[in-house]
Amino acid sequence: MRLTRFHAPTLKETPADAEVVSHQLMLRAGMIRLVHRGCYDFLPLGLRVVRKIENIVREEMDRAGANEVLLPMVQPKELWVETQRWDRYIQEGLLAHFKDRSDHEVCLAPTAEEVMTDLVRKDVQSYKQLPINLYQIHWKFRDEIRPRFGLMRGREFLMKDAYSFDRDQKAAYVAYDGMFAAYKRIFQRCGLAFRPVEAATGAIGGNKSHEFQVLAETGEDTIVACNKCEYAANVELAAIAKDMKVEHDPASLEALKKVATPGKKTIDDVAAFLQLPATSTVKTLVYQWSKDEKPADKDVVLVMALVRGDHTLAEEKLKKALGAKWLKAAAEADVVEKVGPLGYLGPVNPKTKVDVFVDFAIAGMKNFVMGSNADDTHYQGANHTRDFTPTKLADLRTAQAGERCPRCSYDDKETGAKAKLGTFEIKRGVEVGHVFYLGTKYSTAMKATFKSENGKEMPFEMGCYGIGVTRVAAAAVEQNHDKDGIIWPAPIAPFQVLVMTASVDKPEVVAAADKLYEELKAKGIDVLYDDRAERAGFKFKDADLIGIPYRICVGAEKFAKGVVEAKIRRTAVEVELTPADAIAWAIDNVKRDLAIP
Amino acid sequence: MRLTRFHAPTLKETPADAEVVSHQLMLRAGMIRLVHRGCYDFLPLGLRVVRKIENIVREEMDRAGANEVLLPMVQPKELWVETQRWDRYIQEGLLAHFKDRSDHEVCLAPTAEEVMTDLVRKDVQSYKQLPINLYQIHWKFRDEIRPRFGLMRGREFLMKDAYSFDRDQKAAYVAYDGMFAAYKRIFQRCGLAFRPVEAATGAIGGNKSHEFQVLAETGEDTIVACNKCEYAANVELAAIAKDMKVEHDPASLEALKKVATPGKKTIDDVAAFLQLPATSTVKTLVYQWSKDEKPADKDVVLVMALVRGDHTLAEEKLKKALGAKWLKAAAEADVVEKVGPLGYLGPVNPKTKVDVFVDFAIAGMKNFVMGSNADDTHYQGANHTRDFTPTKLADLRTAQAGERCPRCSYDDKETGAKAKLGTFEIKRGVEVGHVFYLGTKYSTAMKATFKSENGKEMPFEMGCYGIGVTRVAAAAVEQNHDKDGIIWPAPIAPFQVLVMTASVDKPEVVAAADKLYEELKAKGIDVLYDDRAERAGFKFKDADLIGIPYRICVGAEKFAKGVVEAKIRRTAVEVELTPADAIAWAIDNVKRDLAIP
Repeated sequence: MRLTRFHAPTLKETPADAEVVSHQLMLRAGMIRLVHRGCYDFLPLGLRVVRKIENIVREEMDRAGANEVLLPMVQPKELWVETQRWDRYIQEGLLAHFKDRSDHEVCLAPTAEEVMTDLVRKDVQSYKQLPINLYQIHWKFRDEIRPRFGLMRGREFLMKDAYSFDRDQKAAYVAYDGMFAAYKRIFQRCGLAFRPVEAATGAIGGNKSHEFQVLAETGEDTIVACNKCEYAANVELAAIAKDMKVEHDPASLEALKKVATPGKKTIDDVAAFLQLPATSTVKTLVYQWSKDEKPADKDVVLVMALVRGDHTLAEEKLKKALGAKWLKAAAEADVVEKVGPLGYLGPVNPKTKVDVFVDFAIAGMKNFVMGSNADDTHYQGANHTRDFTPTKLADLRTAQAGERCPRCSYDDKETGAKAKLGTFEIKRGVEVGHVFYLGTKYSTAMKATFKSENGKEMPFEMGCYGIGVTRVAAAAVEQNHDKDGIIWPAPIAPFQVLVMTASVDKPEVVAAADKLYEELKAKGIDVLYDDRAERAGFKFKDADLIGIPYRICVGAEKFAKGVVEAKIRRTAVEVELTPADAIAWAIDNVKRDLAIP
Repeated sequence: MRLTRFHAPTLKETPADAEVVSHQLMLRAGMIRLVHRGCYDFLPLGLRVVRKIENIVREEMDRAGANEVLLPMVQPKELWVETQRWDRYIQEGLLAHFKDRSDHEVCLAPTAEEVMTDLVRKDVQSYKQLPINLYQIHWKFRDEIRPRFGLMRGREFLMKDAYSFDRDQKAAYVAYDGMFAAYKRIFQRCGLAFRPVEAATGAIGGNKSHEFQVLAETGEDTIVACNKCEYAANVELAAIAKDMKVEHDPASLEALKKVATPGKKTIDDVAAFLQLPATSTVKTLVYQWSKDEKPADKDVVLVMALVRGDHTLAEEKLKKALGAKWLKAAAEADVVEKVGPLGYLGPVNPKTKVDVFVDFAIAGMKNFVMGSNADDTHYQGANHTRDFTPTKLADLRTAQAGERCPRCSYDDKETGAKAKLGTFEIKRGVEVGHVFYLGTKYSTAMKATFKSENGKEMPFEMGCYGIGVTRVAAAAVEQNHDKDGIIWPAPIAPFQVLVMTASVDKPEVVAAADKLYEELKAKGIDVLYDDRAERAGFKFKDADLIGIPYRICVGAEKFAKGVVEAKIRRTAVEVELTPADAIAWAIDNVKRDLAIP
């Protein structure tokens, strides 16, 4: 494509309202333009990136045996009422909805569980038609309250959403694993560093879920990733290796004694006052919980959760350890009435009997400081089991960098190989995909059933699998850029090779560049040709900004010596090659980058 | 693709609510499913057709030098207010609109003149950046009051819309001609019989316009097409060759005489009463018109329009002949007061002086019957010029089958070659595309200007060019089907070749079919393999219904003799070939069908 015939208006200045680097660079490189809140025009360069990602997604979904369909973007209220999501989504404000001219309520699709389940219940009646996995790549609209960050959190976005329908949970898990594998291939083929991350199952239902996070220092999400194995998880959920049981030498245990700590209610204050590190303290948090999702008052129970003073309690983990469906920090009045004074809480002698859940990290501690349930007083020399009986030892804390990976540790125990020990690193990421086992939540609600092998009507076992296609483009920029601009991974670059002339006034130089361009094009390479009559410096700046992986520049001086400049955008490595060698260089690089594993 | 792994649920019965054949067959063939009024799921087979059409459109738009972009489907009211179309579209009811959660009014894109013009005015400042032609292939929503006929008149549909921006009218016409040529290539490549048809410019503005009509007996639109040349037009607009001037022998002219025609007010009644054919009569219609679009009463003038008794007046043509911007049938009271009694109107002695516009067909007539402006009385032996003076002779009538083509007639006059004479045929068509010269209507309204060569700010000269991609799919079915199902033109068929086994219980037969399928797939052919364990008759029926152009069937009996059946869906011609020859046969046919001209 000749740049003189291609609408790619670059900007010198960073637009003031663009906060994140992908937003800034995609605006500056002439890839997107704002139309109104969270809704963008995709200019030709930006659209080419989106289409390349879309094609990789499509190829891998097809390879995994899914069938592509396309559902309406305007959906009828009736289907959303069947799953009781209409009111909830309206309440959350994300659902753009209106009455059509025939007075029917409709919404713009933010997701498609209902419409897809409806499609399948219309035409799939027998277990013989299963498994089935249908996907679409289509535009969605979510009326975000604060759309921002360009394509990172827009209101209108391109999404691949797939839905699997199976005869039982085992088959549904096979579908899930197939999608998990396809997602790994997709992000690998996009040329991105990423991690599949164990995720909370949240409100959508189901109990098996992974997020796919593109790693980027500027990412919104914090994740914990092992430095040795593939394990990664949401920081709230990351399982931590159980500390080895420590049998302390009884002689080393101090006696439990009360110590006055007047007005010292926080860990920091207590530790400073007693001149001890926070790692020698234990804090006690009080929660109320229930096994019901919407419990009556009588079904709510108090519990104490103990974590080391410098650790953070992970509520999701406490919930899991309790088997709770509902969990909330206890009201202050309740705590004072049933446990002890705020700031001095502890597991010994609470005012009423309350279960004590203790984090693994405390298992290895001895002679620690904790509250005494009496005003202005703490205990020193506290030891669990001796001084109080934990109801349960559990993984309750938020993971930190340096903690041991549960997977690697397990491997380690079996083999004794020290090389397999891994520790956690904290990474930041951009969520670009999500795989989710749904069970029969939607199929049951919508009476979507099939006749099973023994003739019984059964609800479909479902999974749903999303990829934010336009978000992948933004995440790729967050991960791949420098001060001069974008550094596209070749498989999703708008063009793989940029040809340019540095000397537009020399006919033989222009002719040589023309020839390079035509030859690369004839070889099937996506090549952009900067044939503009602009200064070389201006064109170099645009080239770096737009970020095409391989650049070939024909300049008068070097061309007189029979060579052109071939430069790799990412490494800035530049070599001089004959035009024929430059073509071979570009083709070799692109072929390697685009090879399908 | 193996049909056992492909969601293509066919239906035996024609759904009751499907009125037109494309709707019926696309439902039955498992291509689409209704979700709610005018909004459909595209199942895998249907989506493949849409994607094939989309790809042809994209390739030809790119070849013509247009750049692909993508605009939001949710558009802000502000832009529509600039062109004063918000209120008008709301009034017409087609615009789906709502307030978003930040209380901004937005609409679902039914078209994109505003957003595209906004995009261009943001980034195009100089004539040096012109010409520019931007297109998108995107979903549109129009809240039709009576959506029906499946994809023919849905509410949600896929559309290619392009917009050209040029420095002056001459350049805009070049853009127009480029799109006209691209459209011809697109519909040729889709394998469709079509006509570009001169069209009314209507309310959208501008004065140069063609519709592209796919010919089909079931089409909604009536068009007039020359049987010799390419000329075709909307039946209301088709120019008719001017009749040669006839110098009647004065001796052959009868005298003008009044004849009593009591109560005979219609052409049929008068002709029957006088025992003359309707072709010997002339009817007089009275209109009021003005040069203003919204005229004041004082600027409205009456006019008589005369056409042969059996002809129909084309109001658009009368408007053009008058140079009118506003035209309406005159009110009865006005006619009676200013011309004569209804049913007896004529050009001689009207009550007040009124211009007389006369259709070309009357130029060659003599001794005709017409009204006398007196009750219960007509004239016989009337002759124009002698008995009344036409203000203007003009092309005023709706074209009929058999009339002479103005293009061919002109050729004929110059060369004398009788072979070049063409006559009109009446055809029916489905409008699938529209090219439109817009001028500066939108650019002026939106202050979208560029600096011209002489430094002056000028509004862009624009054109817009649409193709209803999903409508093309439906039109293709309307044109290509028989009683058994669809007959897809190969370039837009969901698959080009269908392989099937007639004997699923014979392993060697199944193995042969497997091999055929794999080999064709390896050759890059889109092949569907009906590997279902169903009866042969059932599979043949589905094959005819789905309409894949080439079918290869492996049956036990013939396979034992070393041959398979190769059948062309359109012609039903069936041959027996060795498996190797069948592969070559399929590839040859598909290559020829898909060749790019």
